[in-house]
Amino acid sequence: MIQILLNGCCGKMGKVIAEAISQFPDLNIVAGVDKYPCDNQFPVFTSLSNINISYDVLLDFSRPTALESLLSLSEKTKKPLILCTTGYAPNDLDLINTKSSIIPIFKSANMSYGINLINVLLKKISPLLYDNYDIEIVEKHHNQKIDSPSGTALLLGNTISNSIDSKTNFIYGREGKKKRKKDEIGIHAIRGGSIVGDHEIIFAGTGEIIELSHKAISREVFAIGALKACEYMSKIKDPGLYNMENMLEI
Amino acid sequence: MIQILLNGCCGKMGKVIAEAISQFPDLNIVAGVDKYPCDNQFPVFTSLSNINISYDVLLDFSRPTALESLLSLSEKTKKPLILCTTGYAPNDLDLINTKSSIIPIFKSANMSYGINLINVLLKKISPLLYDNYDIEIVEKHHNQKIDSPSGTALLLGNTISNSIDSKTNFIYGREGKKKRKKDEIGIHAIRGGSIVGDHEIIFAGTGEIIELSHKAISREVFAIGALKACEYMSKIKDPGLYNMENMLEI
Amino acid sequence: MIQILLNGCCGKMGKVIAEAISQFPDLNIVAGVDKYPCDNQFPVFTSLSNINISYDVLLDFSRPTALESLLSLSEKTKKPLILCTTGYAPNDLDLINTKSSIIPIFKSANMSYGINLINVLLKKISPLLYDNYDIEIVEKHHNQKIDSPSGTALLLGNTISNSIDSKTNFIYGREGKKKRKKDEIGIHAIRGGSIVGDHEIIFAGTGEIIELSHKAISREVFAIGALKACEYMSKIKDPGLYNMENMLEI
Amino acid sequence: MIQILLNGCCGKMGKVIAEAISQFPDLNIVAGVDKYPCDNQFPVFTSLSNINISYDVLLDFSRPTALESLLSLSEKTKKPLILCTTGYAPNDLDLINTKSSIIPIFKSANMSYGINLINVLLKKISPLLYDNYDIEIVEKHHNQKIDSPSGTALLLGNTISNSIDSKTNFIYGREGKKKRKKDEIGIHAIRGGSIVGDHEIIFAGTGEIIELSHKAISREVFAIGALKACEYMSKIKDPGLYNMENMLEI
Repeated sequence: MIQILLNGCCGKMGKVIAEAISQFPDLNIVAGVDKYPCDNQFPVFTSLSNINISYDVLLDFSRPTALESLLSLSEKTKKPLILCTTGYAPNDLDLINTKSSIIPIFKSANMSYGINLINVLLKKISPLLYDNYDIEIVEKHHNQKIDSPSGTALLLGNTISNSIDSKTNFIYGREGKKKRKKDEIGIHAIRGGSIVGDHEIIFAGTGEIIELSHKAISREVFAIGALKACEYMSKIKDPGLYNMENMLEI
Repeated sequence: MIQILLNGCCGKMGKVIAEAISQFPDLNIVAGVDKYPCDNQFPVFTSLSNINISYDVLLDFSRPTALESLLSLSEKTKKPLILCTTGYAPNDLDLINTKSSIIPIFKSANMSYGINLINVLLKKISPLLYDNYDIEIVEKHHNQKIDSPSGTALLLGNTISNSIDSKTNFIYGREGKKKRKKDEIGIHAIRGGSIVGDHEIIFAGTGEIIELSHKAISREVFAIGALKACEYMSKIKDPGLYNMENMLEI
Repeated sequence: MIQILLNGCCGKMGKVIAEAISQFPDLNIVAGVDKYPCDNQFPVFTSLSNINISYDVLLDFSRPTALESLLSLSEKTKKPLILCTTGYAPNDLDLINTKSSIIPIFKSANMSYGINLINVLLKKISPLLYDNYDIEIVEKHHNQKIDSPSGTALLLGNTISNSIDSKTNFIYGREGKKKRKKDEIGIHAIRGGSIVGDHEIIFAGTGEIIELSHKAISREVFAIGALKACEYMSKIKDPGLYNMENMLEI
Repeated sequence: MIQILLNGCCGKMGKVIAEAISQFPDLNIVAGVDKYPCDNQFPVFTSLSNINISYDVLLDFSRPTALESLLSLSEKTKKPLILCTTGYAPNDLDLINTKSSIIPIFKSANMSYGINLINVLLKKISPLLYDNYDIEIVEKHHNQKIDSPSGTALLLGNTISNSIDSKTNFIYGREGKKKRKKDEIGIHAIRGGSIVGDHEIIFAGTGEIIELSHKAISREVFAIGALKACEYMSKIKDPGLYNMENMLEI
């Protein structure tokens, strides 16, 4: 049984983790930490510093300000640290980088297991398909989203583009009278209502279409990714900076 | 039983009609006409002019050059004429218009029954939904298509836009940092491989998405529309110019 | 401006209503009621009985136990009552029915505006399409759902089936060697993960496919329906039992 | 440039091959063979036996009866033979098997490149996803198909099931009151109209859905697979029986 120490256990994501863990028979939350404690099936501490508990991985869903306490505990225990907090400042990122020479640290730009899996698949299949299949990406998000296309769509597009020998060009819509050029990768941003986030990659060939797609339903999407990362990191002894892609070597 | 005289019966579409008619127990092909005759279960004549056969509707899938013979036969019989040929010159269209004062003539820009049905539905539901649902259109076609977006996507977009009180703007893609404006209707043209033709209209609201979609599979799509038009026109006695929209009053 | 009195304003749905109302420039919450009051931009009372406030419609998202107080206030004010609470006992339903002879009451089995709209469309188009298009329903829900197929899928299936002259048969899956019979309507229940609720109705014809689909994203789906019902009922003066279908006459 | 000798060059698939080859700059049809010859940009012979032409791979889209001539030419030239004909009798298959000890022979149950690629991906990702994602397959075919589910859906289902440690059960529909069991893999067969063939594999998890899908558009789907096999086999010197899966090692 892998014992998780969960920092931020009473926040929104902390609660989602506490529920989703029932899907993982090999995982257990040995204790939680939260400045504003809440009732739980595991003991909850109010600070990382006064903790004297044995654990296998330290999972964090809190705030950037908790970084130093997290690193300091990890340095002491030598146990892997999984950072799922976002919004770190550049000097935070430097610190994470430096400490990764003595602690195994996991940190991923996108914590969705599904998006990362699709990203790995695209790297494998795009070079096989590109010569005979046209590639297009369609993403859908709610009407309050500011960026178009989404960061995830660009991530997937870049993965495709970097996996192909010849040069490709992203285009973000089509209007007028001209045929699709072979080197185009269309990236289409649909916006409307409260759509959580869909990404679809289309490989359209002669006589057939292959599609890979991902639909986010709720914030729970990040819980599975985080818990899969706990399983993965529990086996890691060597210090270093790890991410979802290392975990998904297929 | 409605008796159809089929002009162009040995062409590609003529053959599709001859097969699809088995789905319509009330329809029968009494005879066909084709310059290059072929074997068939019904008699085939080589010209419209030497025909002396009783029929209920005259269905045409041939070429614009056949127009005069078609009109002259129809003028004689007073029976409805269903024109499914495309590519008429402006003076052909004038002639059709003139003759529609003495013959019931059916002619539709798009012979797909499904597209026309969706078009009628959009006219009904867009004004109900517009205030609380964002509208976007996604269309997919093969990589040899020259126009973007498709004529059909523009037709559907205009139907939506005309059914709504306030002014809307079509946009043909999104890139950069700005939120969707309420009056935008995104029209997205995906191009790739040998996709025959898909159209999807998305109404994205708070907490739910409604979609209407149409997928063309093959040229057979036009056969059903033409045969439904035969059923409809067989009941029409008054001269006039009829189209799919009249037929679909729901 | 239509003034809403919102019963259950501090519950989950009450909060969703209070947020979604910003999409409706003609609606305003004049006051709320909740046994357990919360901070709000409108005054909150703890009981319906001690209210002396002028309103246009009374919207309820609370519990069946509130029914008598709701009816008694409505009887006094003669203003429309919109019931969005579920789980009424048979004698509650009898009482609602009785009181609808003196109060305009709105009550719908399914408060999703989208599902009701699709239901109305199916009634219109199924008889047009049935002869030449095969009808199949696919629904997707989370893995904890007990009923298969969903109540909504059955509702839609029955609407289709009742709108068609000839007899149809629902089948709930296919295995073995036999061709689809014309009178079959396949209803397919996909179960997995935390899918909120998708319904897709497929009309598959010769050469084309028409689809209507609905995807629920979150409980907010019911807020739009409830607020549309407020707009609708604000114009109703006559007592009676109203539902989403009356509202959607298209 | 890889030189292809195309047997069956004037049949339906032969013509599709002759057109699709323009997508492959490294491939050329050096000559064709057909009992009923047709005009072509390459020389056409009426029999395999009177051919004395140099080629790199022999591609066959004809009939089982051509098998002996194909094997006898291949035995002489020692060049790879790609068999895309279906309907071989058991003793034909024995003969192919025997001759593969002296000739490199390619033969695949399903010649769609896309279906084979998806099959390989499923083998990779199913074991990663199974514990936390529910797997369901939805396939759609025309209303004249006799088998349900499709052979391809069963192939994909078996690939998933064999790649997972624990036992799974296929179910072919759901009706009644019972929750999905973890070990179920739902396989749903939609039948209607003239749908060519769609397959969708759904991995539904907590908060996200991953989908892989394949849509066949036309018989051209087999051309790309066959020509990709020509590229692959042109590099094979060793006798043996090869298939699409060997080719797709990723």
